[in-house]
Amino acid sequence: MFRLITNGSRTLLHFLLRRRISRSGKCSVALQFEILGRFNRARAARLTLPHYVCQTPLFMPVGTQGTIKGLTNNQLEDIGCQIILGNTYHLELRPTSQLLDELGGLHKFMNWPRAMLTDSGGFQMVSLLHLADITEEGVTFQSPVDGKPMLLTPEESIHIQNRIGADIIMALDDVVKTTTTGPRMEEAMYRTLRWIDRCIAAHKRPLEQNLFGIVQGGVDPVLRDICVKGLVDRDLPGYAIGGLAGGEDKDSFWRVVAQCTAALPEDKPRYVMGVGYPLDIVVCSALGADMYDCVYPTRTARFGTALVPEGVLKLKHQAMANDIRPIDATCDCMVCKTYTRAYIHSLVTKDAMGSQLLSYHNLYYMMKLSRDLHFSILEGRFPAYVCQFLQKMFPKGDVPEWVCNAMEVAGIDISSCCQPISSFITRQANTQKIVKLTKLFVFLALLITPLSYYIAFRVSLDRFRH
Amino acid sequence: MFRLITNGSRTLLHFLLRRRISRSGKCSVALQFEILGRFNRARAARLTLPHYVCQTPLFMPVGTQGTIKGLTNNQLEDIGCQIILGNTYHLELRPTSQLLDELGGLHKFMNWPRAMLTDSGGFQMVSLLHLADITEEGVTFQSPVDGKPMLLTPEESIHIQNRIGADIIMALDDVVKTTTTGPRMEEAMYRTLRWIDRCIAAHKRPLEQNLFGIVQGGVDPVLRDICVKGLVDRDLPGYAIGGLAGGEDKDSFWRVVAQCTAALPEDKPRYVMGVGYPLDIVVCSALGADMYDCVYPTRTARFGTALVPEGVLKLKHQAMANDIRPIDATCDCMVCKTYTRAYIHSLVTKDAMGSQLLSYHNLYYMMKLSRDLHFSILEGRFPAYVCQFLQKMFPKGDVPEWVCNAMEVAGIDISSCCQPISSFITRQANTQKIVKLTKLFVFLALLITPLSYYIAFRVSLDRFRH
Repeated sequence: MFRLITNGSRTLLHFLLRRRISRSGKCSVALQFEILGRFNRARAARLTLPHYVCQTPLFMPVGTQGTIKGLTNNQLEDIGCQIILGNTYHLELRPTSQLLDELGGLHKFMNWPRAMLTDSGGFQMVSLLHLADITEEGVTFQSPVDGKPMLLTPEESIHIQNRIGADIIMALDDVVKTTTTGPRMEEAMYRTLRWIDRCIAAHKRPLEQNLFGIVQGGVDPVLRDICVKGLVDRDLPGYAIGGLAGGEDKDSFWRVVAQCTAALPEDKPRYVMGVGYPLDIVVCSALGADMYDCVYPTRTARFGTALVPEGVLKLKHQAMANDIRPIDATCDCMVCKTYTRAYIHSLVTKDAMGSQLLSYHNLYYMMKLSRDLHFSILEGRFPAYVCQFLQKMFPKGDVPEWVCNAMEVAGIDISSCCQPISSFITRQANTQKIVKLTKLFVFLALLITPLSYYIAFRVSLDRFRH
Repeated sequence: MFRLITNGSRTLLHFLLRRRISRSGKCSVALQFEILGRFNRARAARLTLPHYVCQTPLFMPVGTQGTIKGLTNNQLEDIGCQIILGNTYHLELRPTSQLLDELGGLHKFMNWPRAMLTDSGGFQMVSLLHLADITEEGVTFQSPVDGKPMLLTPEESIHIQNRIGADIIMALDDVVKTTTTGPRMEEAMYRTLRWIDRCIAAHKRPLEQNLFGIVQGGVDPVLRDICVKGLVDRDLPGYAIGGLAGGEDKDSFWRVVAQCTAALPEDKPRYVMGVGYPLDIVVCSALGADMYDCVYPTRTARFGTALVPEGVLKLKHQAMANDIRPIDATCDCMVCKTYTRAYIHSLVTKDAMGSQLLSYHNLYYMMKLSRDLHFSILEGRFPAYVCQFLQKMFPKGDVPEWVCNAMEVAGIDISSCCQPISSFITRQANTQKIVKLTKLFVFLALLITPLSYYIAFRVSLDRFRH
């Protein structure tokens, strides 16, 4: 805290924040969440954090080790990035939380003036490392430095995150594969609940950093419900919905989001972890979620794919080689204003500049999506925005069924951009008819052809005889 | 030409250029070179090219395949980059000159509004490829695509460069190792002279592109002299000094530059190819050179080295890990204003962002060096600038002898920042004295020690006997 106060403007923000919120009598002093507009379950809010005042819904780019690959801080501010995510596990390996602490935290280290969030490190330990094992004490894993067994406890995770100093820090949770069911999932959910108390007890900077709890429970509504209730009882500054975007079917995905957002408190931010695709973000926002993070926009950029309103554009495709249009003619980003598809095609997968330019464009796209969601909710035109979004992505009206179902629950009428169910059924029935007729035709052809040859042969034979 | 005229502002510039120069009766219509200021041999000039009005002395970053690694066009303009270099050989492989021609040239392809220069492609074919062989017809090499033998002739090199469309194009020369002497160097020089006529004859866009001839001849003053005369007779828009920065000793290097710049016409730009280090550029500018190119600033950035007035700063060094100063406190570049040494240390050689930030800083350093040279010559304070530069780089006054010699020929008094020769000699003499005294001391010690032991032994023996 002492270190943060060295910066004048931040001190002022921090002071005002504490003053304003302590008057309201809320326990969270480093976060303020004001809902500015709603459309049914969807909300547009102002999320005031120690380092920045963010607008929700918001997307957080993943910065792993203190850098969003290829983008400078100036560029991140240019595209309207409000908050970035740092990975605790990677930061602990390099440059280490001890050094970050000595140098005044990650904000100061990377000179990032806006908001920041760190994960607990547990997910990476389980997903990246061999021999990781979860016990009641914590996550045991093989050190990638010297190969010795190491233990990440809830206390240690919070201690490291306290030293890194992000605006939002995440509780250590027991992460299991999303599609797991039965006792292991139940154990993981209850352990996550037990660990949250150890995280809260270990958290030494509650006045400057906000600890978010993570709802676990897989695709089981009963477990999710117990977890939500348990976490809400702890009155945390914010809540995350974890364990999604890990291979579950889309119908389970949105139903878990819908269940959790309905049960989580209205006046706290709701963060869906590891999500996602632009379509997922639109759907989750309609269901009342506020925050998202995903490596998708930057990872897909490295593979040569650009995000566009129509879905994706694969710059590696040979058709791009002499296409002198921008990636997206409707996009105002630096890349679309400066470079052609042909130019980016010549770079992708050959020169780092290709993925750098695509990362810039893709993150701009996500930031614009966040802004559009915010203002369309605020200005009461959210359903129109969703319809327009779906129309561009599914011009034939073939909006996936799970989206239609989710939108029905969200109370968003998207009938204008979908084929009505009846016409869909008619179309399906027509398709079946065509298949049947084709089969019949082929059968008849196979039957008639040798028959006609036989008749022709007989006629010729008869003529020959006469 | 037709394609260039599609751009309004460029058309105007082109028109004015042609109009102004055709009145003066000069043969070069796509280049104007006005010397604005001099200090002895050094000159500050305005170099007007079809796409940009440049100030000399100037450094040209190497952009290989239509991109300066990691920097966007906006960033290049921000750092004051006036002209970039493209590599013909690489561009012909990807995206191919044919595609570039179809899309309106490299300027349009990469949307670079300022000046551009392409090399002949010959150097890369000789240096990068196996089985490259130079005959009178051209450079025969093994195709990197299908392994078949291919031939780059002077005509083909110019044809490709005409399609790429840079403001300055380079003649194909016969490149041999700088330190070669004897008949092979003589052959290379005369072949370069024969090829220039084939280049001139093949050049189809002299109204929009400037063909520069390249002086060859190694470190042999007679050969260099013949080559300069031969090229000057052809009255080309500009001249390059080739075959340097390839392993020759520094004394030979500056003497070749001094000889060539003295013999080349006053009213034409002089480009020293493949140079170089900041010190080299200061020396060559003092000797009357105007243009430079080198991969050094970006290559050394990839190895974690920053250019600073004191020389270089190795960001990989462990001492940088918690150094919260900028790379150079006197530098105004985005990187120095935003990031610390500690932050860059955490990235170099681990994340592409490290070399990206260092490339930005290093190119900014080179651009500032170019500007400083220009204005110090223009404002009559060139010797003071050179002294200040040398003082920072050699604070102990140990300016290399070749620099002192070159500066004497350039008529730049650098005595204020060097140890005077007499004191240097005195120091050397003193060192020699110390060495002699040490030798004597060791000799005496070796002599006295056993002698004293012997005496002590004899005394003890005598006492024992008595």
